[in-house]
Amino acid sequence: MLKVEHIGIAVQSLDVSVPLFEKLLNSPCYKKEAVDSEQVQTAFFRQGDTKVELLEATSESSVIARFLEKKGEGMHHIAFEVTDILAEMERLSAEGFTLLQAVPKRGADNKLVCFLHPKNTNGVLIELCQEIS
Amino acid sequence: MLKVEHIGIAVQSLDVSVPLFEKLLNSPCYKKEAVDSEQVQTAFFRQGDTKVELLEATSESSVIARFLEKKGEGMHHIAFEVTDILAEMERLSAEGFTLLQAVPKRGADNKLVCFLHPKNTNGVLIELCQEIS
Repeated sequence: MLKVEHIGIAVQSLDVSVPLFEKLLNSPCYKKEAVDSEQVQTAFFRQGDTKVELLEATSESSVIARFLEKKGEGMHHIAFEVTDILAEMERLSAEGFTLLQAVPKRGADNKLVCFLHPKNTNGVLIELCQEIS
Repeated sequence: MLKVEHIGIAVQSLDVSVPLFEKLLNSPCYKKEAVDSEQVQTAFFRQGDTKVELLEATSESSVIARFLEKKGEGMHHIAFEVTDILAEMERLSAEGFTLLQAVPKRGADNKLVCFLHPKNTNGVLIELCQEIS
């Protein structure tokens, strides 16, 4: 893994949380992007070499809606950038981690992504992501 | 804020979680440090310009023990590096955020730290940290 690419935070409303995080981070939201396959709307902030991603559900069946219902607003996942997502998926699977996708899927911010089940990672939802070139 | 300095993850046992995160991150734990004032033992991993910090409680009255009891293992806080922690505390307080310390305290990894109450930050526990020069 190369670096922490972003930290995902589940929020009820981007209309409320984008201005809040702009004040908190003292930095503007530089991009909003809908990810229809995940039924989420995202908003990004740069922090050094890493990003903060806010996630709002756009449907009641979104994983973010279910997360908010169960746990409330807060940290949702950590995304690590990798150079070769297929090789990293193979390595982690061989190490005993549980992949939530058999093949990478299209994520926000021009990425191929794959998540690891938090049952094997001390409750932390981990995302692997590779920039689509 | 300059960057994400580290992401703090609460775990039951460093003996279990340090080897687990070494496999996950494919990177060795480079430092363990007790923070007696917080009743925690920490373990650090580098990931690009950011770190992952695992936190184990060393006492039942530790904030980490209480977090684990309430929420289980998982992401505990995000730490942002700042150049002038007193100025940043003043700025955030004026913006309506709630500081959990009136003055910075000594944290792990040679840092002065101050936390923000998650009630004002969408449930995310935020740490400000400044390297002690």
